[in-house]
Amino acid sequence: MVGSPLLGKVHRGAAVVLTTQPHRPQIPRLTMEKTKVAIIGLGTVGSGVARLLLDHGDRTARHAGRILWLEKAVVRDLAKPRDCELPESVTLTDDIEAVIADPEIKVVAQLIGGLEPARTIMLKLLESGKDIVTANKALLAEHGAELFDRARELGRSIAFEASVAGGIPIIANVSQCLSANQITSLHGILNGTSNFILSKMHEDGASYEEVLPEAQRLGYAEADPAMDVDGSDAAQKLAILAHLAFGARVHWKDIPRTGIDTLDLADVRYAEEMGYKIKLLAVADLVDAGLELHVSPTLVRAGSPLAEVGGPMNAVRVDGDAVGRVMFYGPGAGQMPTASAVVADLIDTAVGRTELTFKTLELWSDRQARVASSDYANARGRFYLRATVEDHPGVLSQVTSALGAEDISIASVLQHEPLPGEDVIPLVIMTHETTEGAAAKACEEINKLKASQGPTVRMWVRD
Amino acid sequence: MVGSPLLGKVHRGAAVVLTTQPHRPQIPRLTMEKTKVAIIGLGTVGSGVARLLLDHGDRTARHAGRILWLEKAVVRDLAKPRDCELPESVTLTDDIEAVIADPEIKVVAQLIGGLEPARTIMLKLLESGKDIVTANKALLAEHGAELFDRARELGRSIAFEASVAGGIPIIANVSQCLSANQITSLHGILNGTSNFILSKMHEDGASYEEVLPEAQRLGYAEADPAMDVDGSDAAQKLAILAHLAFGARVHWKDIPRTGIDTLDLADVRYAEEMGYKIKLLAVADLVDAGLELHVSPTLVRAGSPLAEVGGPMNAVRVDGDAVGRVMFYGPGAGQMPTASAVVADLIDTAVGRTELTFKTLELWSDRQARVASSDYANARGRFYLRATVEDHPGVLSQVTSALGAEDISIASVLQHEPLPGEDVIPLVIMTHETTEGAAAKACEEINKLKASQGPTVRMWVRD
Ligand SMILES: NC(=O)c1ccc[n+]([C@@H]2O[C@H](COP(=O)([O-])OP(=O)(O)OC[C@H]3O[C@@H](n4cnc5c(N)ncnc54)[C@H](OP(=O)(O)O)[C@@H]3O)[C@@H](O)[C@H]2O)c1
Ligand SMILES: NC(=O)c1ccc[n+]([C@@H]2O[C@H](COP(=O)([O-])OP(=O)(O)OC[C@H]3O[C@@H](n4cnc5c(N)ncnc54)[C@H](OP(=O)(O)O)[C@@H]3O)[C@@H](O)[C@H]2O)c1
Repeated sequence: MVGSPLLGKVHRGAAVVLTTQPHRPQIPRLTMEKTKVAIIGLGTVGSGVARLLLDHGDRTARHAGRILWLEKAVVRDLAKPRDCELPESVTLTDDIEAVIADPEIKVVAQLIGGLEPARTIMLKLLESGKDIVTANKALLAEHGAELFDRARELGRSIAFEASVAGGIPIIANVSQCLSANQITSLHGILNGTSNFILSKMHEDGASYEEVLPEAQRLGYAEADPAMDVDGSDAAQKLAILAHLAFGARVHWKDIPRTGIDTLDLADVRYAEEMGYKIKLLAVADLVDAGLELHVSPTLVRAGSPLAEVGGPMNAVRVDGDAVGRVMFYGPGAGQMPTASAVVADLIDTAVGRTELTFKTLELWSDRQARVASSDYANARGRFYLRATVEDHPGVLSQVTSALGAEDISIASVLQHEPLPGEDVIPLVIMTHETTEGAAAKACEEINKLKASQGPTVRMWVRD
Repeated sequence: MVGSPLLGKVHRGAAVVLTTQPHRPQIPRLTMEKTKVAIIGLGTVGSGVARLLLDHGDRTARHAGRILWLEKAVVRDLAKPRDCELPESVTLTDDIEAVIADPEIKVVAQLIGGLEPARTIMLKLLESGKDIVTANKALLAEHGAELFDRARELGRSIAFEASVAGGIPIIANVSQCLSANQITSLHGILNGTSNFILSKMHEDGASYEEVLPEAQRLGYAEADPAMDVDGSDAAQKLAILAHLAFGARVHWKDIPRTGIDTLDLADVRYAEEMGYKIKLLAVADLVDAGLELHVSPTLVRAGSPLAEVGGPMNAVRVDGDAVGRVMFYGPGAGQMPTASAVVADLIDTAVGRTELTFKTLELWSDRQARVASSDYANARGRFYLRATVEDHPGVLSQVTSALGAEDISIASVLQHEPLPGEDVIPLVIMTHETTEGAAAKACEEINKLKASQGPTVRMWVRD
């Protein structure tokens, strides 16, 4: 019946089953054991988590068999208005020590963004005996090795479902539900901002520059959207998934990545004409040579499930050698979807499931990588190329011989009309299967032609 | 890279990391603790499970932190050839007592179909202290209350991921990953046989009678496909999901259900003309009056995610009040997809996660239903009606006044040409929102008209 988060329905106390103290709505059943919880950071995600804990204690109690009792919340600025109402039972403080020093707080939702002080706070929390739930993918992608090793040494756990694909439970699915499989491929739309912008470019024929401000206005893109649109955010998430699904040991900065920030509307149009949609795909493919990892704008065949993921939604397609192909789809960010993932982790941690899972997770463990990253230049696939050339006889043959020199055979060439007011023509070429390295080399050669009037655009094609 | 189960790659011992006894490929690391496992039933699913355990011990060891050691397998007929090769270390027997009496076997995959002796065997296994993993939805839908109560009394667990939607981990997702949500709606394509037949009717314009034998030949439909195509199988799975997601206490036989076995190709064509595909949807919608549950052939708007689920695939769309809308897609049956789910459950059980989860699951517990089933007649929605009437002036007005009498307003009427050689005409009506009861009543009245030449077809419409 209801498709979007029922934010309007989150009423304080409304869902509580039984309470003798109407002013403390977080007590569903007085006889139940309590697990005391703290939240660090009451921003977008933190205040969503607080609302779920405070207003829906009956749910968490039912699924955890115990009360998740919000004891303390830590912020930077005590005076700032918050998107949640805290009852008197919750201590709001700007002093992280108040949590660290409280031995009764067992589980902490660490919901500050960025690297520092998030890293130092995480280490201190672990050292004071807390289990941690976090949504901070940047922190995990950068300092995962240190944090996970420390947690293991201390016998503590870190849960991080919310760090990848927001409301889609991809971490649990990859690390538990599909554990009978060798995962052979994982393709994800992992950045909602980029997907929103791409969807709008396709639907409205608007340029990147036109759509970006709308994405910011709607709260999909951050004030500084650089990490979202240049592929870094997707690469951070892909690194986490590659650790989990393949036992890779890769730093996100070593993942080849291209964003959508330089995407030209013309290529969106040409892709559409040929029956494709452009998506920012995070790709992990297990091949004989190892694990191919990259984040790339990609022409995905219209009508295929990933192509039809619109707006700010995320999706992950996973191939396992036993299960075959499965796909997970849902909101990749936003207050309540992300809070949904954080609270599921809090429940798992309170119940004791996280502890069991964490022990066997290979994430950043000192175990050796089970798979090496393969050389990106050897990655095989089809490519879309758009050369921008002068409109002379003989130019087409120069371009095609540059491809021939790299042994690239051509599936189709479309010579488009010159853009109005320009005398250069866009030459759109779809290749047959080749390697990334050969395609890159051929583009370099095309760019060196005298007739070339701008860098050749190159994108992956997935049919 | 690889989309379908790599059955060909399942080689004995191929994936074993370290073994000093080459004839016992199931030992990945000799120092690891063992959890001894038995399989009851080495049919389609059972032999797939055996292959994963035997050939991929390294995977299960990695995820469980211990060896899942296949100790015994029980079958009815010892002489029958099996779809898996058992090493000498595995005892093949036709005597269930050999498992029951073995105190070292802690976890049993119960993979016999049907109600008896499956039920009696399950009870005996629980009583002898085993935790159970099963794929038998019919047994759970029929005797779930007894089995789950007994398991709880005995402090044992039953895991059943494979019982609904095969390879899609919908049980774990609904009962754990989305536990911060009030689930408000769950729509599923839960029967692969029906979906395969419907997809073929749409793609090839073939009739139900023409496609059914193909479904049987390809192994999608059983020799007796009645439960698949009459909606019973989907209703059994829906009952399990309704228990989990909504705390309902409903027997599958009380879920109103219509199958695809009476579906006319003409309606497939008319639906397509109007931009819809017919899907067998299992629906659970939480409304003010309670939980609406039914299984119905439904016109689903083409291009929407559920409409595009083709072939024998399954999908489940879940709306949660925090997460919004998520969707899970994958193979709903088949040897290795189902085995993937069974082995994930075996790992969860060996690790100890199942025990923790099972305690808080509300499935068939003696806790009161959290939600009552609402009266199906009050379920609201749009309907597709096809009346078959004589081609007389005035008939259309008789039909529309039958609808008017039930306060049903009409969105569109399409009067089709009489079918060749017949002098009756099909009158296709799309209603505006009304209730199921009113639509049923109106159809009855239309059927009573003198001009009526056959029962009026009625299906739900989902835009
Ligand atoms: N927003 C999403 O949709 C989403 C989705 C998935 C993952 N995430 C991740 O979730 C994390 C939080 O994101 P968000 O959107 O909630 O960020 P946000 O709205 O900026 O909130 C951050 C919160 O952290 C607090 N904080 C910062 N430094 C602190 C310090 N030194 N001590 C105490 N509190 C401090 C801030 O306090 P003040 O309010 O007092 O300044 C603020 O409440 C990030 O890692 C983000 O990547 C977010
Ligand atoms: N096949 C699928 O794709 C699928 C998907 C999801 C769920 N499931 C469920 O999984 C279960 C098994 O399905 P299946 O397709 O594997 O069935 P199957 O191929 O018919 O295999 C059933 C097995 O049980 C054995 N068996 C029957 N009665 C027995 C008894 N009294 N004692 C010992 N063994 C006995 C049979 O032994 P013999 O071989 O010696 O006769 C056979 O090996 C069913 O509940 C089914 O609904 C199946």
